Amino acid sequence: MNAISTLSQNFIFMLEFAATTAFAVSGVLGALRQRMDIVGICVCSFLTAFGGGTLRDVLLDRRPFFWVEHQSVLIGVIAISVGLATLVSRNQLERGQRWLQIPDSVGLGLFCATGTHLSWIAGQPPIVAIMMGVITGTFGGVLRDLVCNEIPELFKDHRPYALCAAAGGAGYAASMAIDAPTWIALSACAVVAAGSRAVVIVFDVKLPPTGRR
Amino acid sequence: MNAISTLSQNFIFMLEFAATTAFAVSGVLGALRQRMDIVGICVCSFLTAFGGGTLRDVLLDRRPFFWVEHQSVLIGVIAISVGLATLVSRNQLERGQRWLQIPDSVGLGLFCATGTHLSWIAGQPPIVAIMMGVITGTFGGVLRDLVCNEIPELFKDHRPYALCAAAGGAGYAASMAIDAPTWIALSACAVVAAGSRAVVIVFDVKLPPTGRR
Amino acid sequence: MNAISTLSQNFIFMLEFAATTAFAVSGVLGALRQRMDIVGICVCSFLTAFGGGTLRDVLLDRRPFFWVEHQSVLIGVIAISVGLATLVSRNQLERGQRWLQIPDSVGLGLFCATGTHLSWIAGQPPIVAIMMGVITGTFGGVLRDLVCNEIPELFKDHRPYALCAAAGGAGYAASMAIDAPTWIALSACAVVAAGSRAVVIVFDVKLPPTGRR
Repeated sequence: MNAISTLSQNFIFMLEFAATTAFAVSGVLGALRQRMDIVGICVCSFLTAFGGGTLRDVLLDRRPFFWVEHQSVLIGVIAISVGLATLVSRNQLERGQRWLQIPDSVGLGLFCATGTHLSWIAGQPPIVAIMMGVITGTFGGVLRDLVCNEIPELFKDHRPYALCAAAGGAGYAASMAIDAPTWIALSACAVVAAGSRAVVIVFDVKLPPTGRR
Repeated sequence: MNAISTLSQNFIFMLEFAATTAFAVSGVLGALRQRMDIVGICVCSFLTAFGGGTLRDVLLDRRPFFWVEHQSVLIGVIAISVGLATLVSRNQLERGQRWLQIPDSVGLGLFCATGTHLSWIAGQPPIVAIMMGVITGTFGGVLRDLVCNEIPELFKDHRPYALCAAAGGAGYAASMAIDAPTWIALSACAVVAAGSRAVVIVFDVKLPPTGRR
Repeated sequence: MNAISTLSQNFIFMLEFAATTAFAVSGVLGALRQRMDIVGICVCSFLTAFGGGTLRDVLLDRRPFFWVEHQSVLIGVIAISVGLATLVSRNQLERGQRWLQIPDSVGLGLFCATGTHLSWIAGQPPIVAIMMGVITGTFGGVLRDLVCNEIPELFKDHRPYALCAAAGGAGYAASMAIDAPTWIALSACAVVAAGSRAVVIVFDVKLPPTGRR
C-alpha cells in the first residue's frame, strides 16, 4: 500500500515536472520570437511556468510560493531555459510546439486542480475557487504574452482553454458537493480539464465569434 | 429613521451597481475592439470592474476581496458581459459609450471615496490615502488597457480623470482634518470627484501639453 | 565615531535619493516619448522609482511599503516629475540620459543590496534572495516599459543589467556564507552590481545572441 502510494506520488511529481517544463518551453519560445536576450528568456520562462500559481498565491495571500519552497524546480526551469536558448534553434522549437500541447494539457489539468483545491480549503465560495483554478492554470501564459507585448492568446484564441479549466473546476465542486473524497475531486478536476482540452485540440473546437453584427 | 437609512443604503447600493456595470461595459467594449473571444471579454470586464479595488486591497494587504465577499455582484458582472457580447453589436456599444460617462463618473466618485476611506482608517498618511482612492477609481481602466495592449487612456487622455479623483481624496482629507463625521467626508470625496469629472466632460477641459518645446 | 556613522548614513541617504531620482527621470522620459499627460508622467515616474521595491514587498508580504513610510521621498519624486515635465524639453532629457547612467548604476547596486538583504533576513533560500535583489533593482524599469507598451528593455538590451544585479547578489550570499558582517555583505553586493554595470557601460559589453541558427 505504502509502495503504491509512493509510486503514485512519484508519478504525479513526474507529470507536474513535465507540465511545468512544457509551460517554461512555451515561455522560451515566446521570448525567442521577440528576439529577447538570455535575461528576457529566463524571465519569460519563469513567468509562464510559475506566474499563474504565484498570482493565485498573492490573491489568496499564501506564502511561501511554490518556487520558494521547491528551489530545485526553480533551478531546473532556469537551467532548461538557458539550455534551450543556447542549444536549440527557434525553428526547431516552433516545430516541437505541436507536441508541447500534450504536456501543456496535462499541466492545465494539474495546475487547475491544485488551484481550485487550495482556494476551496481556504474557505472561498465555489465560483471563486473555480476562478482560482482557472487563474492557476492559465495566467502564466497571460503574463508571458503581456511581457512579449501581445494581446494574451488566452483572450483571442477562440479555442477553449480557460473554459476547459473552468469545466474541471466545476467537476471538483460537484465532487465536493456529493462529499466525494478529496482525491476523487482532484482527479475529476484534472481529468475533465485536460480531457476537454484534448478534445478541443483533436477536433479543433472553436467558440462562436463575439460581437453581433 | 431606520426606514430612511435603509432607503439611503439601497440607493447607494444601486449607484454602486450601476457604476460597476458601467466599468464592466467599458471592459467589454475594449475587448470587442480587439476581437477577443468570450473568455477575453469576461476577463477584461472583470479587470475593469474589480481591478482597481483588488489592486488597492493587495497594496493594503486586505482580504477578502470585494468580489469574494459579494459573489452576487461577481456573477452579475460576468452575466452582463456574456449577455452584451452575445446580444449587442460593437457599433451599438460604441454609440452607447457616450452615455456610459454618467455612471462612470459616479463610479469614479464612489470607488475613490471607498478607497480613500479604507486606506485612511488603515492608518496610512493622507497623501497615500488619496493615492489609494485614485488607484481604486482608475486602475481598473488601466488594467483593461494593458491587457488590450494599449497605452492606458488614463495616461494619455489629457482630460483630467485621475486628477478629479485626487481632488475628491483631498476633499475627504480636508473633511477629516476638521473632524467632520465620516459620512460627510465620504460624500465630499464622491461629490467632488464625480462633480469635477462631470465639469471636465461637459466643458471638455484639457490639461496643457507636457514636454516643453 | 558617532559623527562618522551619521556622516556615512547621510552619504548613503544622498546616494539613494540620487538613485531614486535617476530612476524617476527615466520614467518621465519614457512617458514623454509616448506623449503622455501629466498623470501618465507621474505614474510612470512612480512605477520606475518605486515599482521594483513594491513588487518585492508584495512577493515577500512586507508592509508598509517604502513610499508609505517615507512620504517625503514620494512627494519629492512626484515634485521632480512635475517639474521636469513642465520645465525641460524632451530633447534636453534625451541628451541628459547619457549621464543618468551613473546614478542609475548606483541605484542598481543599492536597491539590489537592500532587496537581497531583506529577502535573506526573511529566511529565504540564497537563490530566491538573489532573485529578489534583481527584482528590486530592475523591475521598476520593466513596469515602466510595460505601461509604455514596449517590450521591457531589460529583456532585449543584450547589455547585462539584471546579470550585474545577480552578480551583486552572489557577492552578498558569498559574504554571508563566510560569516562576514552584514555591512560587508551589503557593500559587496552594491559594489559588485554597480561596478560590473559600470564596466558594461564603459566597454559596451554585449551578451551573445540567443536562439541557435
